[in-house]
Amino acid sequence: MVEVGGYRAVARCDALRRPPFSEVADSLFRPYLSEAHRATLAQVREWMEAAGMAVRLDPAGNLIGRYETATIPPQLAGEGDRTTRAARDAVVGADSDVNPPPPIPAVSPLISGGMLKQKSLILASHIDSVRDAGAYDGPLGIMLAIEVVAALHAQNKRLPFAIEVYAFGDEEGSRFPASMLCSRAVCGQVARAQLDVADRDGITLARALSDFGLDIDRFTEARRDPSELIGYVEAHIEQGPVLEAEGLALGVVTAIACQRRYAVTVTGVAGHAGTNSMVLRKDALTAAAEMALAVETIGRAGLDDLVATVGRFTVAPNAPNVVPGEVVFTIDVRAGEEAPRNVAASAILSRIEAIAAARGVTVAHQLIHDLPPAPCDPSMMDLLSEAVREAGHTPRRLVSGAGHDAMVFAGVTPTAMLFIRCKDGISHNPLEAVEPADAEAAFQALYGLVLKLGEASA
Amino acid sequence: MVEVGGYRAVARCDALRRPPFSEVADSLFRPYLSEAHRATLAQVREWMEAAGMAVRLDPAGNLIGRYETATIPPQLAGEGDRTTRAARDAVVGADSDVNPPPPIPAVSPLISGGMLKQKSLILASHIDSVRDAGAYDGPLGIMLAIEVVAALHAQNKRLPFAIEVYAFGDEEGSRFPASMLCSRAVCGQVARAQLDVADRDGITLARALSDFGLDIDRFTEARRDPSELIGYVEAHIEQGPVLEAEGLALGVVTAIACQRRYAVTVTGVAGHAGTNSMVLRKDALTAAAEMALAVETIGRAGLDDLVATVGRFTVAPNAPNVVPGEVVFTIDVRAGEEAPRNVAASAILSRIEAIAAARGVTVAHQLIHDLPPAPCDPSMMDLLSEAVREAGHTPRRLVSGAGHDAMVFAGVTPTAMLFIRCKDGISHNPLEAVEPADAEAAFQALYGLVLKLGEASA
Repeated sequence: MVEVGGYRAVARCDALRRPPFSEVADSLFRPYLSEAHRATLAQVREWMEAAGMAVRLDPAGNLIGRYETATIPPQLAGEGDRTTRAARDAVVGADSDVNPPPPIPAVSPLISGGMLKQKSLILASHIDSVRDAGAYDGPLGIMLAIEVVAALHAQNKRLPFAIEVYAFGDEEGSRFPASMLCSRAVCGQVARAQLDVADRDGITLARALSDFGLDIDRFTEARRDPSELIGYVEAHIEQGPVLEAEGLALGVVTAIACQRRYAVTVTGVAGHAGTNSMVLRKDALTAAAEMALAVETIGRAGLDDLVATVGRFTVAPNAPNVVPGEVVFTIDVRAGEEAPRNVAASAILSRIEAIAAARGVTVAHQLIHDLPPAPCDPSMMDLLSEAVREAGHTPRRLVSGAGHDAMVFAGVTPTAMLFIRCKDGISHNPLEAVEPADAEAAFQALYGLVLKLGEASA
Repeated sequence: MVEVGGYRAVARCDALRRPPFSEVADSLFRPYLSEAHRATLAQVREWMEAAGMAVRLDPAGNLIGRYETATIPPQLAGEGDRTTRAARDAVVGADSDVNPPPPIPAVSPLISGGMLKQKSLILASHIDSVRDAGAYDGPLGIMLAIEVVAALHAQNKRLPFAIEVYAFGDEEGSRFPASMLCSRAVCGQVARAQLDVADRDGITLARALSDFGLDIDRFTEARRDPSELIGYVEAHIEQGPVLEAEGLALGVVTAIACQRRYAVTVTGVAGHAGTNSMVLRKDALTAAAEMALAVETIGRAGLDDLVATVGRFTVAPNAPNVVPGEVVFTIDVRAGEEAPRNVAASAILSRIEAIAAARGVTVAHQLIHDLPPAPCDPSMMDLLSEAVREAGHTPRRLVSGAGHDAMVFAGVTPTAMLFIRCKDGISHNPLEAVEPADAEAAFQALYGLVLKLGEASA
């Protein structure tokens, strides 16, 4: 097994699944701005540097490895700035003077200096995890991006744009009650006031950033000007069963699904299960069961990127000898585009009303949230598909039903997303698994895409 | 409003709904062998005596008012026995010497003496209640029985058999983990070892009986020899909506339903609600929903006394964004006779297997309990129907889906049960309500039945 490319990317994810890279001993939990996060960034920084990148930490806690274009003005070589020391300490620790690493500029002078407007392609994913996580959800995309740069660097190959590999500090929202905090910060969507959210121990985000060695007054400087960007590319495990079911290693994401979620309350009449004859019952459970089946039927009738789910379903009084009087359940509807999702959601709501009316129970629904779709860039998708094909694989196009950092960037810069088959579609679970050969295919495709973008920009 | 008969029976139930006849201030809770139970028995004893009955307490805590036949041997008048004092104290309190009530024989010498074998007709129901109870579930049957005797006594009318009005101490099982304890004791179905069950405070039934002033060594003497009984008649609120729906005041119970209960576990595959396409899902919830609807459909297809209920239904992991991986639910099937119940239960189980197979989920079921039916006596039913008709009402025959003390006696002596319409079918709830006019109709029917039984025995 060749210890570079996709194989090495998988091995590195495996290496990051236990302490000091996890907060807990026997499983993976790496929340944003934790000691596990700090230790992980120190390790990732080494790997980025070994791949030829200059590494910095932005004020949101994103680790960024930058691989320059062909033309680096010599006067900028080795330059740092006033936040260098704090940022470096945050990553490598204050005792690293014995063998001092090169200074890490907090913001690249190529960008902030205003002199040179060389654009960057961002290759990224998130380094944080949920509790009891798998090793690949997030880190694999970062490790594959590092491999792409390592391969370029090994051949001393430069492109007409810089590559910046981002390891986002928070995507999962497993510490603070907000998710995709770090990609939103890069896209200028997190206001200073939002730093007041607190974790379960009452520690605010502002305090946690400060404890991590970051300057909260510069938090909004994590933002990147879209005019400086070529685009955004993220590789990620599918977290679903589609690729595996079709025997395919890779998928080209067409959009991050739009999503609508409802809470539904069905109210019937609770009564003794022995004394209430069938015809006189107003059974909230059988009414809700018929509604759940309608959600499924309408979900199945749509295009294959439409999904409709009843995930939470709570019955009262929930006793074996009582006809249920109330059921509260959720409906989650997602699709690649808003129109079919809205058609499905409307069909579900009217079907639910009809079922309630026919059964003489009452039903009420409440819209919990409504997220627009994040379409990927058609040209980027075409180039990625070509690269997948040249790597010897079928570029299955599919919608991502799960949210990703890519959905934040899709509104800001041309965005592409590559899905990698995972075992049984399992994620957010220690059983999460990826075939190293699939990761290698992903590496090839990603590398191919970067070269194609280089040719297109030349 | 005439203050006798059904009207007075309802008023007396209302009088018993608050302290000292309830353990709690603002609602009714009268568990077995509580102070509220003791206070209630003292009150009921007064009413029984006023109706011309000799009152005693049996070793299980059942209060029994006996109205003798036409022929009382004079040598037995006023006689007591060695447990008289304790039993009387238990009911009226030890300070009642100021105005001593007549002695209460613990076991009637007419029965225990073995000299005279005059048989008894038992009119009964239970005096205990669930927590936050209604006023009529149980007490109304006792109060109506007292009214029947009061009416006989007012006319100085005697029958060829004695009437014994029983106020059972426990039916609901709201204190000890066992129900119908007292009717089972009378039918000889409670062994001495069963007195070791404990309530939530760790007080055993044996200790509670002893604290109540009863002799636990004589507990099994609560048993009545079936050869001494003419039959058993119980009036009770319907606890269901059938009579009200049909505009009828009274029902003649044909049987206490047989019952079978299953626990069913459906196992699918949990997964991300956004990434698992509809066709690849193994959704435990929609599978279980289809099963719940099959239970309902099969329940509706049977005779009108067949009921089939999914009452408990618990989903895991029960999160809005996760396709459910497991559902555990209960099925409760009841009918007047075993054959149709068994047909329905078998049809449900095979339908469930078929649904699981079609959906690629697994299903397992477990029989939780299986109770035989308790049929009422055909001749008693006919006489009761006649009496209902003569009272100006339609004798709607129906199966009792709920359990009652009558089901214990049905295997021991000819048993009849009269149902009284209750508002909205509600019971075990402070909203429980009975029209006094309906209770009066029940009184007329019950009185009529007793006279008919007298004629039949003459």
